[in-house]
Parts: sequence; C-alpha cells; structure tokens
Amino acid sequence: MGKGTLYIVSAPSGAGKSSLISAMLETNPTYAMKVSVSHTTRGMRPGEQDGVHYHFVQKEHFEELIEKNEFLEYAEVFGNYYGTSRVWIESNLDKGIDVFLDIDWQGGRQIREQMPQAKSLFILPPSNGELERRLNARGQDSDAVIAKRMAEAKSEISHYNEYDYVIVNDDFDNALTDFKAIIRAERLKQDKQAAKYKGMLDALLAE
Amino acid sequence: MGKGTLYIVSAPSGAGKSSLISAMLETNPTYAMKVSVSHTTRGMRPGEQDGVHYHFVQKEHFEELIEKNEFLEYAEVFGNYYGTSRVWIESNLDKGIDVFLDIDWQGGRQIREQMPQAKSLFILPPSNGELERRLNARGQDSDAVIAKRMAEAKSEISHYNEYDYVIVNDDFDNALTDFKAIIRAERLKQDKQAAKYKGMLDALLAE
Repeated sequence: MGKGTLYIVSAPSGAGKSSLISAMLETNPTYAMKVSVSHTTRGMRPGEQDGVHYHFVQKEHFEELIEKNEFLEYAEVFGNYYGTSRVWIESNLDKGIDVFLDIDWQGGRQIREQMPQAKSLFILPPSNGELERRLNARGQDSDAVIAKRMAEAKSEISHYNEYDYVIVNDDFDNALTDFKAIIRAERLKQDKQAAKYKGMLDALLAE
Repeated sequence: MGKGTLYIVSAPSGAGKSSLISAMLETNPTYAMKVSVSHTTRGMRPGEQDGVHYHFVQKEHFEELIEKNEFLEYAEVFGNYYGTSRVWIESNLDKGIDVFLDIDWQGGRQIREQMPQAKSLFILPPSNGELERRLNARGQDSDAVIAKRMAEAKSEISHYNEYDYVIVNDDFDNALTDFKAIIRAERLKQDKQAAKYKGMLDALLAE
C-alpha cells in the first residue's frame, strides 16, 4: 500500500472550502480520507468534541510539543496556541490516508516548506459580487465585518498562484467534480501506483 | 485561453490503449481533444484517409521536413519514414487543444526530451494471462506472433516507471474514469486556470 497525500486547501472565506471538503468526504468512501484536526490550548466550547473539532491540550503540553518540533506550523492567537501536528498527519499518511488541511496561505506556505510532497489547492469564488452575496446570505456578520472579510479575501486570493491546482467554485457540483478528479488523478501518479500494484507489477515483469 | 497539453500514451499491445483513447474522445466533448496523426511516406492502403490515419507525404518532402527539424521524433521502418510533426502538434496545443500521442516508450522518451511540459501516461494490463487472453481474442495472430507480442509487452512494461501516470486497465469503465480524471485534473493546474480565468482573476484582484 502506498502513502497518502497531504492536501493543503486554501480559499477566501465564502468561497465554499468547508462545504467542498465535507461533500468530498461524504461522497467518496472508496478512498481513505480525513480532515486534519488542529491542536489548540483554548477551552472546549459547547458542542465541540476532542479529536473532532480540535485536539484540546494544556498549554504546557503544547509547549513541549513545540520543543520536540512536532508541529508543521503553529501560531499564538489571543493567548491561545493553534497548531498542525506533524506526527498526526504523518501517521495518517503512512496508513495510506489522504489528509486535507484547511489553512490560509501563510500556514500553507509553512507546510509546503516542510512537506514539499504535499499538493495544494486553491478555491476561488467566481466574482467579488458573488463572494459578498454568499457572506451576506450567511446572515452572521455586520456590514463592517463583511467589508473586512472582503478585504481579507482579496489578500488571500492574491496568493492563488502559489498553489498546484485552482478550482473555481461557481457551480458547486462542478467544483466538487473538479476536486474529486484531482484526488483521483493524484492517486494515479506513477509512484503511488507502483506502491499499490507492487505485486501485480512483479508478476508482469517476472521472467 | 490557455494552451493544450500533449499526452504521451504508451502501453503494451493488448492493454487497451486505442480503445481508451477512442472512448475518451467520444465521451468528453466539452474539452477540445485530438489524437496526433503521424506523417508517413508509405503508400495509402484501402480504407485509409489522408490526415486521418496518417499524413501521407512524398519521401523528398519528408526529408525536407527532417532538415527543417519539423519532427519531434521519426524512424525509418522497411524503407518508409514515420514521424511526429512538431508543427502540427504545437499549432493544436496553441489553440487550447489537448493532443494524445499514441507511441512506444522509445518514441515517448524522445518526445519528453523535446517537450518536457508533456504529460505521460502508461496503461497496464492486470496480468500476463489476461494480456495473452486479449491478444488471442482478437483472432488476428498466430501463436508465434502472440509469443513475440508477449515478449515485447514485457519489454514495454519495464519502462512504466518513466511515466507521470499509470492506469491499470482491468475494468474498462474504471480505466476510462481514471483517464478522464487525469485530463480534468491537468486542466485544473494553476498555470492552465490562470490563463483560462485571466479576466475573472483581474476582476477579483482589482482595487
């Protein structure tokens, strides 16, 4: 069995990244796939589950993990740590599981430096008008917050060209088909297939 | 509009390469795709059409084209030339058309050296037993010819690891879905998408 692939997935807020990843996991059960779960030192909120939403750990433990170089990337936000565990990701990849890492361009860049074999995917909205419409449709944010998100979106989008693949999420089903094609094609790469079909290849080439 | 991709497609005889390429062209009309048509100096046979089966040219003209370095690769077989025209392929790629080049590993290697941006695909049979069964089922060849093809198959298969992608043609529909996923995913590569969506990206990033 071959190793899984780490997918770095980035997009501006409102482009549909989380929905696409969820739909991907639901519709394609023949491949082993997981979403990376971050470590954090912030408290658990109602409805959250340890190991599902985050790996909740104590600050002292997190700092130990930093010392041991067990994070691919981490950041401190309002006094809480958030990080991506190298060990968790690598143990899943070793089992042949593809791992999706939902992260912004800065985090993506750090991951790419440490795991250059990772593949990266950027999801674009079809237009700023549509992005703003989707952010408004959520009904979560004030006009001021939406204006801030639109500015952040532009900054995030300006890094699309650092990614291996670009999906335009205009029509959701079409974007999902794109996403699935990428995962399927990456599994057909020569090194992955050579590992998966080692026995068959040995038999084909036996004298 | 972005440029098309040149696909080098190789396989041992009986692996189903021609059927897969034909099915690909029939089932996926939204992408512009063509099979590369070789030049040859041999005579046209009954049922053959110029520009479809081959570009039939005079020996003097072929040698002029060699002089002008217009072939990506060519060979002389039993006194006749066969070659792959760089000009024909590049003019199609420039129109955004994907071109499939059905060629053996030696030819594939020559093409790859001259067009490193080409993607290459190797199609494997699931076993030698199945390959032999398929060659027999054609009813075209004597036992001696089949034994020769089986030996050639092993030699061709031994080069599978020079290719970008490997498809195992055990179940035809599954292999076709693999093939389509590769073509779709390659069109989602960042540089292709940046060219295709230039106007949209300019609008997304405008101040």
